[in-house]
Amino acid sequence: MDLTPLIQDAPTKIMLVVMDGLGGYADRLSGTELEEASTPHLDALADHGVTGLVEPVGPGITPGSGPGHLGLFGYDPEQFELGRGALSAAGLDFELRPGDVAARGNLCTLDDDGIIADRRAGRIPDDKAAAVVAQLQDGVRLEGIEVFFRHEREHRVLVVLRADGLDARLTDTDPQRTGIPPLDAQPLFPDAKRTAEHVADLSNQVRALLSGQPKANAILLRGFDTHRELPGFAERYGLRAAAVAIYPMYRGIARLLGMDVLGRPANLDEQVGIMRDAWADYDYFFLHHKYTDSAGEDGDRPRKIAAIEQLDAVVPDLRELGVDVLAVSGDHSTPSQMAAHSWHPVPVVLWSDRCGRDDVTTFGERACLRGGLGIRPTKDLMAIMLANAGRLQKYGA
Amino acid sequence: MDLTPLIQDAPTKIMLVVMDGLGGYADRLSGTELEEASTPHLDALADHGVTGLVEPVGPGITPGSGPGHLGLFGYDPEQFELGRGALSAAGLDFELRPGDVAARGNLCTLDDDGIIADRRAGRIPDDKAAAVVAQLQDGVRLEGIEVFFRHEREHRVLVVLRADGLDARLTDTDPQRTGIPPLDAQPLFPDAKRTAEHVADLSNQVRALLSGQPKANAILLRGFDTHRELPGFAERYGLRAAAVAIYPMYRGIARLLGMDVLGRPANLDEQVGIMRDAWADYDYFFLHHKYTDSAGEDGDRPRKIAAIEQLDAVVPDLRELGVDVLAVSGDHSTPSQMAAHSWHPVPVVLWSDRCGRDDVTTFGERACLRGGLGIRPTKDLMAIMLANAGRLQKYGA
Repeated sequence: MDLTPLIQDAPTKIMLVVMDGLGGYADRLSGTELEEASTPHLDALADHGVTGLVEPVGPGITPGSGPGHLGLFGYDPEQFELGRGALSAAGLDFELRPGDVAARGNLCTLDDDGIIADRRAGRIPDDKAAAVVAQLQDGVRLEGIEVFFRHEREHRVLVVLRADGLDARLTDTDPQRTGIPPLDAQPLFPDAKRTAEHVADLSNQVRALLSGQPKANAILLRGFDTHRELPGFAERYGLRAAAVAIYPMYRGIARLLGMDVLGRPANLDEQVGIMRDAWADYDYFFLHHKYTDSAGEDGDRPRKIAAIEQLDAVVPDLRELGVDVLAVSGDHSTPSQMAAHSWHPVPVVLWSDRCGRDDVTTFGERACLRGGLGIRPTKDLMAIMLANAGRLQKYGA
Repeated sequence: MDLTPLIQDAPTKIMLVVMDGLGGYADRLSGTELEEASTPHLDALADHGVTGLVEPVGPGITPGSGPGHLGLFGYDPEQFELGRGALSAAGLDFELRPGDVAARGNLCTLDDDGIIADRRAGRIPDDKAAAVVAQLQDGVRLEGIEVFFRHEREHRVLVVLRADGLDARLTDTDPQRTGIPPLDAQPLFPDAKRTAEHVADLSNQVRALLSGQPKANAILLRGFDTHRELPGFAERYGLRAAAVAIYPMYRGIARLLGMDVLGRPANLDEQVGIMRDAWADYDYFFLHHKYTDSAGEDGDRPRKIAAIEQLDAVVPDLRELGVDVLAVSGDHSTPSQMAAHSWHPVPVVLWSDRCGRDDVTTFGERACLRGGLGIRPTKDLMAIMLANAGRLQKYGA
């Protein structure tokens, strides 16, 4: 359902709290991290509000951060895509402009015959890789084109070309295997021919510049992508939206949707403070809490529980801001047993003064199974939040 | 899933009872109206049958009566539309014919400069408005076109043009704001040019006829619409279908789907009597109970509870008719706290001798959350009812 024709204004504030990788699964030994965490304030929210479970992309699908967040923002992750280049740029706070061509690069090792020996240059450490990237930024020159190399982590590099008339519709130079030479970037459409030639030029210059390096002596490029204009929150929902996030990736995703990205917070208290200061200026706040996911990815169950309890402690501060609709959920599950993202449904609690109640009085995966929101696609939350905020007109006569 | 290829005949009777605006929400003070009503017969149905919650249009979407009923009849409300003109006609028991062009009209007040001063002519009372409408019916003459003016309520008028070659694809003359003159109806397609000219002629004649009126001195038109051929119950489901409703709107919707609209009942007992008399002649009965919604819209919680109890009292009579599949639900929620339609899921109970059982023994929103039907789109009910009636063949070999 396209919500835009139904949007109406209302003097209400909506807040979405994303506990990254929140969900987990119970096993024979213990409950989920959320179930075992002490969360009196989230439990009170569950008691007074409605709960449920959401699936970010689809049943059985393990979401990346991009699709996970798109779902929470009401964008069907199957319909809207954040390309790898765009996400890499977002993750580095690099502002892609219309017409830019971005790609994910791998520093790699070629043998003496130009055959790929290692696609990740021996997982080159950050400091060495950063030096190589600086060398590339200084040395590579393309006629009439601005080139940006930005180091991400280990062997990973963001490469951006900026000029008029570029076209990102190219095949990868990264064959995603060893034992063969890097591929040429082939234009998928005639308009991309010139860009393909520039990519070949760039790849050759990189090999010349790095010929003395023991490990990182070439670059493999994949996921050529351009700046995508996603319909923003203002246009789609009529909301003045703000994001308060610590990590660049989530700041970047929010920026791609036209949210204002507020401040440079270093911790949750600063995040709350930033929202308090900007409270009057926005209709929608996105608060991102990363540490649930980091701990889950590390397989560190006690630390994930602590990160959940840390968020719980600020819930009273959030409610005191005067929020009308408050939802707390996650962009995907990251069970500490798996030390990775997973497909398990993510618990959600939603509170407003007209949300209704269910019989659930604690916030946890198994309790949420009995919740009033049922099990549903994550993208449906946005409509329910807007409805609770009085921001959707009646459909049909 | 298109059910039509699977339809088979069976000697079974289906009944759908629609308690208009049935759903509500619990808050910290009390349960929902349905939860607090004393409903021994509906509870027995829930005990012996299966329950659940349904969303008429989609999550978070507040349905109008048209989409709400289409969903209950198994028509996806996003795919099938009842235009405002068609619904207005339905609401007045005015039978639109193929080729007719219908619009919703507002009697309005123009100032001396032809600027809209009041879009509703001071919410002119019914008797005065009816006189004005009669004056228009007598006075307006369009070359080669039959024109119908029908008073609805207060300032609201149905306007229908009847002739060959008309085309409803026009923009509104109602700008939906004051301080500017009425708009011209613009043809959206070349074929609608002549109809636009007739609308201009009509608007001018109305102004001339009403120039002496203090308040209602012009008409604003919106929602130009034509008779839509919706696939009917016979064609789609192989059902001989009958509607027993008091209010014109619901009689009209049923008629648009090819149901026979039986009698002119004044109350529930008469509705039951009409069904009893016609029992042998139909496979499917639609019983519409309006007063739950009227009370909800008035914010009158005790009256909504009483309206629910009133329906509960006739459930034994309904079962005694010998119904094979009985479903009771609503076209949308109308929580008395909001005094308006809402998006909250609507409880449903379904009984047949092969429907199965769940653990739910009372009919109420929170009980239904644990029901065997789960939370699902309203439109899915029709297939489940047909299946319980033995009217759907196996799919595939």
